[in-house]
Amino acid sequence: MTVAVYPGSFDPITNGHLDIATRAARLFDKVTIGVYDIPARNLMFNTHDRVELVTQSIAGLPNVEVKPFTGLVVDFARQMGARAIVRGLRAATDFENEFEMAMMNKRLAADCDVVCLMANLKYAFLSASLIREVARLGGDITDLVPAPVAAALKKRNAAGA
Amino acid sequence: MTVAVYPGSFDPITNGHLDIATRAARLFDKVTIGVYDIPARNLMFNTHDRVELVTQSIAGLPNVEVKPFTGLVVDFARQMGARAIVRGLRAATDFENEFEMAMMNKRLAADCDVVCLMANLKYAFLSASLIREVARLGGDITDLVPAPVAAALKKRNAAGA
Amino acid sequence: MTVAVYPGSFDPITNGHLDIATRAARLFDKVTIGVYDIPARNLMFNTHDRVELVTQSIAGLPNVEVKPFTGLVVDFARQMGARAIVRGLRAATDFENEFEMAMMNKRLAADCDVVCLMANLKYAFLSASLIREVARLGGDITDLVPAPVAAALKKRNAAGA
Amino acid sequence: MTVAVYPGSFDPITNGHLDIATRAARLFDKVTIGVYDIPARNLMFNTHDRVELVTQSIAGLPNVEVKPFTGLVVDFARQMGARAIVRGLRAATDFENEFEMAMMNKRLAADCDVVCLMANLKYAFLSASLIREVARLGGDITDLVPAPVAAALKKRNAAGA
Amino acid sequence: MTVAVYPGSFDPITNGHLDIATRAARLFDKVTIGVYDIPARNLMFNTHDRVELVTQSIAGLPNVEVKPFTGLVVDFARQMGARAIVRGLRAATDFENEFEMAMMNKRLAADCDVVCLMANLKYAFLSASLIREVARLGGDITDLVPAPVAAALKKRNAAGA
Amino acid sequence: MTVAVYPGSFDPITNGHLDIATRAARLFDKVTIGVYDIPARNLMFNTHDRVELVTQSIAGLPNVEVKPFTGLVVDFARQMGARAIVRGLRAATDFENEFEMAMMNKRLAADCDVVCLMANLKYAFLSASLIREVARLGGDITDLVPAPVAAALKKRNAAGA
Repeated sequence: MTVAVYPGSFDPITNGHLDIATRAARLFDKVTIGVYDIPARNLMFNTHDRVELVTQSIAGLPNVEVKPFTGLVVDFARQMGARAIVRGLRAATDFENEFEMAMMNKRLAADCDVVCLMANLKYAFLSASLIREVARLGGDITDLVPAPVAAALKKRNAAGA
Repeated sequence: MTVAVYPGSFDPITNGHLDIATRAARLFDKVTIGVYDIPARNLMFNTHDRVELVTQSIAGLPNVEVKPFTGLVVDFARQMGARAIVRGLRAATDFENEFEMAMMNKRLAADCDVVCLMANLKYAFLSASLIREVARLGGDITDLVPAPVAAALKKRNAAGA
Repeated sequence: MTVAVYPGSFDPITNGHLDIATRAARLFDKVTIGVYDIPARNLMFNTHDRVELVTQSIAGLPNVEVKPFTGLVVDFARQMGARAIVRGLRAATDFENEFEMAMMNKRLAADCDVVCLMANLKYAFLSASLIREVARLGGDITDLVPAPVAAALKKRNAAGA
Repeated sequence: MTVAVYPGSFDPITNGHLDIATRAARLFDKVTIGVYDIPARNLMFNTHDRVELVTQSIAGLPNVEVKPFTGLVVDFARQMGARAIVRGLRAATDFENEFEMAMMNKRLAADCDVVCLMANLKYAFLSASLIREVARLGGDITDLVPAPVAAALKKRNAAGA
Repeated sequence: MTVAVYPGSFDPITNGHLDIATRAARLFDKVTIGVYDIPARNLMFNTHDRVELVTQSIAGLPNVEVKPFTGLVVDFARQMGARAIVRGLRAATDFENEFEMAMMNKRLAADCDVVCLMANLKYAFLSASLIREVARLGGDITDLVPAPVAAALKKRNAAGA
Repeated sequence: MTVAVYPGSFDPITNGHLDIATRAARLFDKVTIGVYDIPARNLMFNTHDRVELVTQSIAGLPNVEVKPFTGLVVDFARQMGARAIVRGLRAATDFENEFEMAMMNKRLAADCDVVCLMANLKYAFLSASLIREVARLGGDITDLVPAPVAAALKKRNAAGA
């Protein structure tokens, strides 16, 4: 059985992330989405809310689960018994950063491999930070994020008004 | 059972290719290396020799096999019953080309996904064309290619002399 | 009145090119598509056929016309009385080449400016060479090129069989 | 009549920005420079000063005006009746970010197009942040910014001393 | 006698930096490593500690010395009588930033040239920020930094626990 | 004494190449320009003419000489007693190729280092192939190449007419 982890901040999860998770779930027997548990200072949603939004968004995927994590991604992968760390690749600047992380992960855990899936064209230039920015400015992002995220962003903006 | 294909020209197979194949063999139940069967005009080795060199190089990998193929990669993947097309990513310029191909493959075969593995750092800037060039100029490439390839390149150069 | 030229090989014109031409036609009063008239050696279609396919593809655009040209793009732009040279930008590697050409054009004709339109996301990773390659291998490209081009490619492949 | 907006932070306006505005003014009937009205926390100049410096810098351009704006760029463009959003492109990393923004703008406002002008070679590697950095460290930036900006930066540095 | 400076934050010095310094010392008669003296707010180590760690790391290099500096790199270079400013290049995104800085330095000091050395493959994807991040999360970085830095990072983490 | 080689095709030498050679001559005691001696098939000028044009172009540089070479660059460097291989870097796509070559050179000759100089901004987007293309199409390239090259290109075009 091949297990994979899909780590990230997911602040919030977008349709791009969901697409990667769905495709990973077809390639591997089990996928654990790891939500990086960091202080909410630079984030829009705290860890509890980010985990909750991912949980609601992946409701239809039987072999996908969610867990918060701290520390190194490779340590999280080991705890999950994962042989693969899944990452989505969007544009060329992503690539450099991902390569850097992949090389470091390889050094820290030779038995666990980074597997990259190319972002769906529809989401090739979509990022969580762009979603936050556009939502904050009142733009319509409903078909770029899962429904629970759209609702949460709406609530946030109403509260901020 | 998850089957993957790993397509390429392999003119000739390098240690970078072999590393990707080895890692793919750990992630998937079966991996078929597809050697693109094109006229030898711009190639150093013909299809028969390229298949032979790959075969000898993967001798130690039980769940990896080799096959020549023509036509679209996605059609080859379908014939093999593959759910994944494996590609190695080296540098940022690779990425653009691979993304372009991945988008086209996705359009042509929605059920088959492109899975990218980051090149091992040792081989991050290694390409078959660089091997051919350096070998032709008399440089030592023995620890950059599998032993059968080193022998074949040596024989070629001797014949060319 | 602001006139623009949109130069290229158009071997053949794709939906990506057509999208750029359509958008340029909304920004400028008149757009002349310049089909680069080069010997057919490395091309799939000769100049006559490429001009013909563009002509048929832009039938619905009243302020767009087609002309073959030789020599420097800036000389062609001057002959057309154009103040803008339109280029489509797809991916980061495109950018470098386009920048290089734009700098040279600027030196050769300070009064004519290069105007870049970002490729539509649907066509962001589409190129004429990819179309030729996929069509040659029997892949379905009907919704990536104008109808006359799809027909011409089909005819070519049938003739080649 | 084709109207364009040219949005940015302009903190402060550089000769590179001014060059783009001047060229846009030759291509379009009217150009409105939109100065992004954000809290001055991470900025060197507040919105009032940035608008003022742009106003003084474009004194010689009859069909260019300046306006502060908040919210989405596409909403600002709509309010101005603009069909084009002008952006300057400098280097390859610019490109990725601009492409991302262009795709989002397209989704939010299909009727408004992003038009990119290649930075003049002289200013191809010039940015407002580099100007701020060099000015702060006492470097001479007088021929990289409009005269009113050079004076304002000098005053700032004197005040900071 | 050709003198070179090698400026940076060195927060902390890595084996990648040390490799560049060692190679620069073979090319030039004298190399002065310039440690950028900035307030410790966003840094892990203050200027004193960063200079100290560089000093200990370069103990074996007779023609290399260390100095803190403030202000423009070109002014520091001039004070040192340097004809060359050494920079290490790692990946393509580095390149753009370095090019931008090099162009500005050239304008500010035509007599001093930026000389780039390609990062050793082993350190091609290594950065001080990645070291800080991995060390903070408890990863083993001992063979990526000079021994004094490994000890200092260990002490920091123990103190932070 | 530090000796450097500056290898290339120089088909033909441009002002960009000359600028790199001039700057290298300030950094190193002696610079040997190596003109790659390859069959003239894909070249505009044969080896003899390319060497001649470089020779005339560097007339004013006392510590620079020219030599044709075959085989590996590192072997040429060793024959010249060079410790540095000089390369000019223009844009980000250059960088990847240069990095690839530098890594290979390092493996083949650990004692010889690749030293990159950033192209002068004026020549940052200039290449020999662009010069050949523009000259062939009748564009004016007189201030982009040394005078002997401009004369040679003129003669070529007249002969071709």
